[in-house]
Amino acid sequence: MKLYSYFRSSASYRVRIALNLKNLPYETVPVHLLRDGGEQLKPEYRTLNPDGIVPTFVDDDNHAIQQSLAIIEYLEETHPEPALLPKSPADRAHVRSLALQIACEIHPVNNLRVLKYLKHTLGVDDAAKDAWYRHWIESGFETLEARLASDTRTGKFCFGDTPTLADLCLVPQVFNANRFKIDTTRYPTIQRICDHASQLDVFARAAPGAQPDAE
Amino acid sequence: MKLYSYFRSSASYRVRIALNLKNLPYETVPVHLLRDGGEQLKPEYRTLNPDGIVPTFVDDDNHAIQQSLAIIEYLEETHPEPALLPKSPADRAHVRSLALQIACEIHPVNNLRVLKYLKHTLGVDDAAKDAWYRHWIESGFETLEARLASDTRTGKFCFGDTPTLADLCLVPQVFNANRFKIDTTRYPTIQRICDHASQLDVFARAAPGAQPDAE
Repeated sequence: MKLYSYFRSSASYRVRIALNLKNLPYETVPVHLLRDGGEQLKPEYRTLNPDGIVPTFVDDDNHAIQQSLAIIEYLEETHPEPALLPKSPADRAHVRSLALQIACEIHPVNNLRVLKYLKHTLGVDDAAKDAWYRHWIESGFETLEARLASDTRTGKFCFGDTPTLADLCLVPQVFNANRFKIDTTRYPTIQRICDHASQLDVFARAAPGAQPDAE
Repeated sequence: MKLYSYFRSSASYRVRIALNLKNLPYETVPVHLLRDGGEQLKPEYRTLNPDGIVPTFVDDDNHAIQQSLAIIEYLEETHPEPALLPKSPADRAHVRSLALQIACEIHPVNNLRVLKYLKHTLGVDDAAKDAWYRHWIESGFETLEARLASDTRTGKFCFGDTPTLADLCLVPQVFNANRFKIDTTRYPTIQRICDHASQLDVFARAAPGAQPDAE
C-alpha cells in the first residue's frame, strides 16, 4: 500500500492515523505541495488524482482512491478492526457528523489553493489571509467544543474512550490551529482530547514532524 | 421524520433526493437563510444544529443529525434499499470520493457564510465574488468531468445506471452552476447525467422550485 502524502497536509495526516491505528504497513510517497510550482499539479500525479490534491491512497491491487474520508471509510470496510466508527447507526451518524464538520466546514476554506486565490487573484495581504485562516478554525472550534462538551457520548476521545473518525479529523485540525498560533485552551474539551491522543504512538507516528518528507 | 431545510441549500437538496429515493415520507421545516439575519443563526435552531447551517435531520426518535453526508449514510444504514452505495468496497470508495470531491472541494468554498466574509470583511465587490463562485465550480467540474468521462463505471448516472451518493451531490451542484450562468455544456458527462436525473420524479420533487418554501 502506498500513500501519496505531504507531511503538513492535514487530509494526509488523517489517513496516516487510520493506517497506523489499523496497523497497516504502507509506503509514503512524498508529494511536495510548494516545490517547483507544486508537485501535486504535475501530469504524472494527476493521473492518480485528477484534482491535484493529496492524499491519494493506492492499495495492493494498484487501485487509487482520492479524498481522505473515502479512503478511511474504505480502510474501515476492508480492515474492520479496530473499528473507527461505532456500532449503532445513530452513533455512527454522530461521529461522521463531527468529522464532516471539520472536513466540510473548516478545512476546505483554508486549503492551499483557496489561500492562493485570496492572495494572487483577490490581492488579499498576508495579515488578512492569516485572519481568514484563524476565523474559520475559531468559529468551527467554538461550535465543535459546544457539541463535544454537551454530549454524554464524549469520552477520552470525541466518542467514548477509543479513537474514531472524528478524532482522525480533529487532531490534524488542531495541529493547523497551533501552527497559526490559535489559543486552543479556549476549547478545553478539544484540547483535552488532543492531549490524550498525542500520548499514543499511533498518533505520534502520523504527525507531520515524524514524516520522511518533514522539513 | 423532519428535515430542517432551505429550498435553495444544495446540502438540503442532497438529503431531499435521498429521502425521496428511499421513499421515506418527511416533514419539511423551512429555515430561511436570508430572512431576519438568518433563521439558521437563531438560538432555537442552534439547539438542533450548533453550527447554524442546514440541513438538520430529525428522525422519529427525535434524534437530530447534522451534515448532509452523515444524514445520507445514516439513511443508507437504516433503510438500505434502494442502495445509494454500490456493494464492493472499491466501488463504494469511488462513489464516496466523487461525492466528497463536490462536498469538500467545491461546495464549502461557496457557502453563504464564506461569501458574506468575502463581501463584508474583505470588501470584495459583487463581480469578484461571482467570479470566485464560478471559479470553484468550474475548476471542480473540469476534474470531475475528466474522472467521469474516463471511468468505465460511469453509466446513466455517476456509477452505473442507478443513482448513488455521487449523483445526490452532483445534481444540486449543477443547479448552483446554472444559477450562476455557468455553461455546463462544457462538461458533457456531467450534463448528460443531470439531464437523465431531472427526468426522474424523485429528483424533480427534491428540486428547490418544488419546495414549500420556494420563492
